[in-house]
Amino acid sequence: MTDHIERPEYHISKNRLETLVDGIFAIAMTLLVLGISPPRPQDALAKSVLPGMIESLVPQVFLFIVAFLVLALFWLGHHRQFHFVHKIDPVLLWINILILISIVFVPFSTDVAGDYPDVMDAALLFHANMFIVGFLFFTQWRYICRHEHLCEPVLEKPVKRGGFYRSILAPAIAAVGGIICLVNPPLSLLVYIALPVGTYLLGHLPSP
Amino acid sequence: MTDHIERPEYHISKNRLETLVDGIFAIAMTLLVLGISPPRPQDALAKSVLPGMIESLVPQVFLFIVAFLVLALFWLGHHRQFHFVHKIDPVLLWINILILISIVFVPFSTDVAGDYPDVMDAALLFHANMFIVGFLFFTQWRYICRHEHLCEPVLEKPVKRGGFYRSILAPAIAAVGGIICLVNPPLSLLVYIALPVGTYLLGHLPSP
Amino acid sequence: MTDHIERPEYHISKNRLETLVDGIFAIAMTLLVLGISPPRPQDALAKSVLPGMIESLVPQVFLFIVAFLVLALFWLGHHRQFHFVHKIDPVLLWINILILISIVFVPFSTDVAGDYPDVMDAALLFHANMFIVGFLFFTQWRYICRHEHLCEPVLEKPVKRGGFYRSILAPAIAAVGGIICLVNPPLSLLVYIALPVGTYLLGHLPSP
Amino acid sequence: MTDHIERPEYHISKNRLETLVDGIFAIAMTLLVLGISPPRPQDALAKSVLPGMIESLVPQVFLFIVAFLVLALFWLGHHRQFHFVHKIDPVLLWINILILISIVFVPFSTDVAGDYPDVMDAALLFHANMFIVGFLFFTQWRYICRHEHLCEPVLEKPVKRGGFYRSILAPAIAAVGGIICLVNPPLSLLVYIALPVGTYLLGHLPSP
Repeated sequence: MTDHIERPEYHISKNRLETLVDGIFAIAMTLLVLGISPPRPQDALAKSVLPGMIESLVPQVFLFIVAFLVLALFWLGHHRQFHFVHKIDPVLLWINILILISIVFVPFSTDVAGDYPDVMDAALLFHANMFIVGFLFFTQWRYICRHEHLCEPVLEKPVKRGGFYRSILAPAIAAVGGIICLVNPPLSLLVYIALPVGTYLLGHLPSP
Repeated sequence: MTDHIERPEYHISKNRLETLVDGIFAIAMTLLVLGISPPRPQDALAKSVLPGMIESLVPQVFLFIVAFLVLALFWLGHHRQFHFVHKIDPVLLWINILILISIVFVPFSTDVAGDYPDVMDAALLFHANMFIVGFLFFTQWRYICRHEHLCEPVLEKPVKRGGFYRSILAPAIAAVGGIICLVNPPLSLLVYIALPVGTYLLGHLPSP
Repeated sequence: MTDHIERPEYHISKNRLETLVDGIFAIAMTLLVLGISPPRPQDALAKSVLPGMIESLVPQVFLFIVAFLVLALFWLGHHRQFHFVHKIDPVLLWINILILISIVFVPFSTDVAGDYPDVMDAALLFHANMFIVGFLFFTQWRYICRHEHLCEPVLEKPVKRGGFYRSILAPAIAAVGGIICLVNPPLSLLVYIALPVGTYLLGHLPSP
Repeated sequence: MTDHIERPEYHISKNRLETLVDGIFAIAMTLLVLGISPPRPQDALAKSVLPGMIESLVPQVFLFIVAFLVLALFWLGHHRQFHFVHKIDPVLLWINILILISIVFVPFSTDVAGDYPDVMDAALLFHANMFIVGFLFFTQWRYICRHEHLCEPVLEKPVKRGGFYRSILAPAIAAVGGIICLVNPPLSLLVYIALPVGTYLLGHLPSP
């Protein structure tokens, strides 16, 4: 497969791939809002009913914010991992396409989990989705570390290790969330607060 | 945190952040139209009922235009503030992510307020959303002014002051809107007409 | 206002404006498809009912294609007019923002007109929307021609005249559509076939 | 028509066309998720009913993944074909606009086929859509091969032939899918698994 990359017609420009990735992240992050179902009471009842209906949206809005922040952190992770990528090979391309499928699925799983946060299957769907995204980013980092001819600047040892801890964080948190979910589904969704905190703490390790 | 920015792996390219910001603004501005609910009368009744139904959409269309213009002004504000930003540090990055969450929420709050402009809670939701966006832009400008090592060209005193007045305008108008809303919700939504007018008048002060 | 453009902080980059414009065009063109309501018969009836339901979507699909082509032609028109624009001044910026509002409205008016092509008000909404977009593009071209300091390369006389005919075509066709609509709404929607034909014929005149 | 391209005002920048194409691909790929209808049981019933409802979404999710992968492959095909394109002429522009219309239609046909995979007309709609996209890409490649003045680097014979086989693959698979569909609609949707496999095998031929 190595010789494919050498042939000019197989060259996949890093720039155009990043445009697609950034575009899909931007759209998925914006579509999250469609998961918050606008209340539609009858006009006559609106004044008395709407305040309560808006309050009952709190769990949906909370999960919207959580999902947005997690996507923003994944977008940042993509940014940091690709900082070192110089050439795209077919494997890296397909890891990215799998990442994009699971990112596009997030507005759906957020919608379901936001509507029924106390139903185990709904919350599990969300955790499973986050685990898959996280696992794919972890896989991507492993692949980048093992194929140094794709990289520039060269990856130094501490950078590799820092990126390893950083990219194992998200799938680990999602797995913990999945386990807690078996006992207490709504509580399990709070687990993602550990993601920005953990990423910040790992910021003192070398990166990305 | 300052030394983070020095390490190449922490470098967040201004260009890729602007792409995400522009993308999310473009999508949020376009999704606003989904808040105007297309009338769906039965085919047999359509000819007699539809004209009235289209007329009753006027408040929704009006708020769609208001929200679009306000978002366009915020996009412009981002453009102007980032004109001086040369390097992105983690704090600036997170201010931007918070700005994006509140921008993505706008199609939802516009939808609710457009459907029930005479219900206080619906109009308040819209004012609160606009206040938060405005306040975050104000915070961003303060942060930029106080961290001159991120800037290029250097910020001169009158430019700082001009940007200060300009970025305090939106949250001030949203706060006034919120107060009027306690008395007269539909009227309070007209307050945003002051935003383009005020921005124009402040155009005679140094900028951004 | 001229001295505003000279001040660096008022500089609006042509590049970032084009990104916003291209983004909003791309999203509006894609959202058009949401106007085609997917049939949702009950599973038990689907086999017998669905074929007829799909056939009855023909007018919606037809108008979807028309609206997509018209938007593509407007996008192209933007491209051609901006070929000559070198600097953006505040007036040009605001013409663009007005263009974008009316572009974003197109998925809504297409949805309504596609659902009720034989109701006069629905078809008129579509013609009015198209007329406004066309008129704004016409206005933009006039403004560009009269403010040559914004242009590079310099606009030669035949180029100006060619662009004039070209940009008067869309609003003229929409106006004719509006008049035919008073007599025969569904027929009036066919009028836009004249737009690609006319643009092609005008291609023999100097451009844009 | 050749002299049109020489005139500067007819110049359509490859870059801005690619931005529109990438944008529309990104949005269409993300809108696919809206085709998966989130289950909305009553709160009281949710715990007992939701698991079964989520399971019954499997065919929709499967087709969502298929459609996403096919769109990703088309996006890649566009990337590869445009690698050789240096200048855009009006015919190439219009082939691209037709490609975009049929890409934008994919979320709709995927939605219908995902909801009713065992109804022949629904699955046929999907195959027809895929066939049209594939046929347009095939046409585009033929056009590029026959208009070498638009190309750079020059197309060598084996590259032309490789691109020919590659671009005939998608419409051929869609045609086979359409034929199988007459006998067994749900089975026919599995045919697209041959697309990544076939593209991989053809990777040993010269490209794109």
